[in-house]
Amino acid sequence: MAIADLFGSASLPWLNIGGRESDVVLSSRIRLARNFRGIPFPNRADFTQLAKVQEMASSVLPEMEHAVGQSFDVVDMDRTSPLEREVLIEKRLITRNFLRSPQHRVVFISQGRHVSVMVNEEDHLRIQCMVNGLDLDNPLSMASGIDDLVESQLDVAFDEKMGYLTSCPTNLGTGLRASVLLHLPGLVYTRNINNIINISQQLGLSVRALYGEDDQEWQGDIFQISNQLTLGFSEEEIVGNLKSAAKEIVSHERRARKALELYRKDQLEDSVWRAYGILCHARSLSEKEVLDLLSKVRLGVDMGFIGEACAACFSEILIGSRTSYLQNLAGSDNMSGSELDRMRAEAVRKILSVHRVE
Amino acid sequence: MAIADLFGSASLPWLNIGGRESDVVLSSRIRLARNFRGIPFPNRADFTQLAKVQEMASSVLPEMEHAVGQSFDVVDMDRTSPLEREVLIEKRLITRNFLRSPQHRVVFISQGRHVSVMVNEEDHLRIQCMVNGLDLDNPLSMASGIDDLVESQLDVAFDEKMGYLTSCPTNLGTGLRASVLLHLPGLVYTRNINNIINISQQLGLSVRALYGEDDQEWQGDIFQISNQLTLGFSEEEIVGNLKSAAKEIVSHERRARKALELYRKDQLEDSVWRAYGILCHARSLSEKEVLDLLSKVRLGVDMGFIGEACAACFSEILIGSRTSYLQNLAGSDNMSGSELDRMRAEAVRKILSVHRVE
Repeated sequence: MAIADLFGSASLPWLNIGGRESDVVLSSRIRLARNFRGIPFPNRADFTQLAKVQEMASSVLPEMEHAVGQSFDVVDMDRTSPLEREVLIEKRLITRNFLRSPQHRVVFISQGRHVSVMVNEEDHLRIQCMVNGLDLDNPLSMASGIDDLVESQLDVAFDEKMGYLTSCPTNLGTGLRASVLLHLPGLVYTRNINNIINISQQLGLSVRALYGEDDQEWQGDIFQISNQLTLGFSEEEIVGNLKSAAKEIVSHERRARKALELYRKDQLEDSVWRAYGILCHARSLSEKEVLDLLSKVRLGVDMGFIGEACAACFSEILIGSRTSYLQNLAGSDNMSGSELDRMRAEAVRKILSVHRVE
Repeated sequence: MAIADLFGSASLPWLNIGGRESDVVLSSRIRLARNFRGIPFPNRADFTQLAKVQEMASSVLPEMEHAVGQSFDVVDMDRTSPLEREVLIEKRLITRNFLRSPQHRVVFISQGRHVSVMVNEEDHLRIQCMVNGLDLDNPLSMASGIDDLVESQLDVAFDEKMGYLTSCPTNLGTGLRASVLLHLPGLVYTRNINNIINISQQLGLSVRALYGEDDQEWQGDIFQISNQLTLGFSEEEIVGNLKSAAKEIVSHERRARKALELYRKDQLEDSVWRAYGILCHARSLSEKEVLDLLSKVRLGVDMGFIGEACAACFSEILIGSRTSYLQNLAGSDNMSGSELDRMRAEAVRKILSVHRVE
C-alpha cells in the first residue's frame, strides 16, 4: 500500500470481516507502552530530548521491518496536514494525544496497517498490533517481538518491582492494553447492553461505544472492551481475562440474535434490507445514520439475511463515511453539513456499487 | 393479451407513462351510459329482461370489435371468482356497482384494455374508453363510434328534451362522464391541493383521491377529476370544460414542482432515491406505503432525478401491489396482513428488478 493510501483509501485490512468469532468481534488489538531510561516522558521532555527519542526509535526501524516482514511508512506529524492527522485517528493508527504538539511526533505504520508504532506519544514508544476477529495471542506475540527487538538494542525503563515505567500510572507494570471491538446490535436492541457494561466494569474491564459515546446513543452498536489494570497481572493473565470476557459477551450477543430471529425474523429481515436500500440510494446521509444503517446491514450479513458480498464493504464504509475522511478527501474542512452529507452519501454509494447484492 | 392476463398480469397499457402532459396526467377516460328502449333499467329488470339486454349487446359485439380494430374478451361475472372480480375493479375495467348481482352481468374488454363495455351495470350499457395522458378527444370519438354502431342496430332510449335516458338522473342528457387521473404530489406537498379541490367543485367538477379517500390521507397523490353535470351541455362543452380545468391544474402542479426544485431540490432528490431504494429492497410493504413511495419515485422520474427506466414500472406496481391483485394471485383472501405485506414487497421487487436504475 502506498503512503498516499493511508489518507486517500478507506480500506483498513484489520477491520475487514474475518478471523475468529467474526460474526460479533470486529478486531483485536494489543498496545505496549515503553520508555527509554534516562530521558523524561514526552510531556516533560524538551525538543532535544524528543529528537533523541525519535533518533533512537528510528535506529531500530529496519529491524522492526524485518521482524514484521513488511516495510513501514514513516509519517511525521510535523509534515502532515491537520486533515490527514484526523484520518489517521479515525483509522486508529494514532491517538488524539499524539497531536498535542506535532514536533518529533512520528508514527511507523506497516504496509498491511496491522502495526503502528507511535514515537513520543504519552510514552516514548506505543507499539500497537491489530488483527481481525477475536485473536489477542497473535498481536501480543507480534508486539512482544517488536518490544524484544527494541529492548535488545536500546535501554528501556524497567523496574523489578513496578515493571515497565510509563508516563501514566494506569499503564505501569506490563504497559499492556488489550482491546477488542465488538458489534453488539442484538444486545442493544434487546436492551441488555447496560448489564454487559456494568458487569464488565466489575470485572476490571472498560467498555465504551466506539461512536456516539457522549450522548449515550450507541451509534453503530460497536463497543470497545479493554483491560483497565496493567499492574499486578502477567501479560497472559490480562489477555486471558479479556479473551474470556469477550467470549462471554459473544455468546450473550448470539443468544440475543437467536431470540430476535425467533420472534422478529420478518421485521428484522425487512429492516436489514431497507437499510441496505437506503445506503445504496440515498443522496444525503449523516454520520449517525450511516452507522445505524451499517449496523443493520452487518447484522443482516452475519445472520445470513443478506449476501456476503456487501460484507466486504463494511470497514470501507465505516472509515469512508467519516467526516474527517471526507474532509481530507475534499481538502477542506469548510464544507456545510449538507454538502458533507451529500458527499458522504455519494461515497457510500460508490463503495456499495462494487459489491451489489439482491 | 390472453384473457388469463386480465387477472394475472399487473400491466395496464393506458396507465403506462405516455401521451400529452404525461408528467402530471396519468390517463383520460370517457364513459357513455346507454339504455335500450322498452326494457327496465337493470336494477328493476327481471332475469329474462337482463338476458335480453345481454343478448342484444352481444349481437353488436362483432361490429364493436371491427370498429375498435381489436377482438374483445367477454367476461361473465357469473363465471368469475370474487377475487378475479376485485382485480377487474382495481384495473377500473368494471365498477363495484356491477357486482351487486352477477347474473347476466357481462363485460366486453378489448385486447389492449382501452375499451370496456359493461352490460347491465346501472344502465344497460356503460361504454368506457381509456388512454394515457391528457386526451379526451380520442376516447370520446372511440366511445361515440361504438355508440353510433349500437344505435344503428338497436333501439336506444333517447328523449328530444332529456337526451339519453339513464337509470340515475345525474347521467341524463349526454350520458357522458369524462374523467382524468392526475398525479399531484407538488400540490399535496405545498398544501395547495384543498384549494384546487374547492375551486374545481365550484366549476361543476368533482375531484376525489383515487386511493385513501376516506381518511383524507391522499395515498399516492393521485386524483380523479370528472364532470358532475351531464344535462344542458353538449359533449364537446363537457369535454372542453374538463380539459381546460385539467390543463389549469397541470400548470399549478408544475409551478409547485418548480418551487420545490428551487427551494428543496436536495431533500427532494434524496427522498426520491430513498423511496426507490426501499421499494427495491424492503421485505414487507403495506398498500399505503407502496403508494407513498411510488408517488415519490414517479415525481423523481418526471423531474428528471431518476432514470426513465423505472417509469415503466409505475403502472405495474400501482396494480401489482394492490391487495386484491395479490389475493387473486395467491388464490386466497385468507392471508394475514403480514403475509400480504411480504408478498407485496416481493411483487414490487420483482417488477423493479426488470428495470433497475442507478
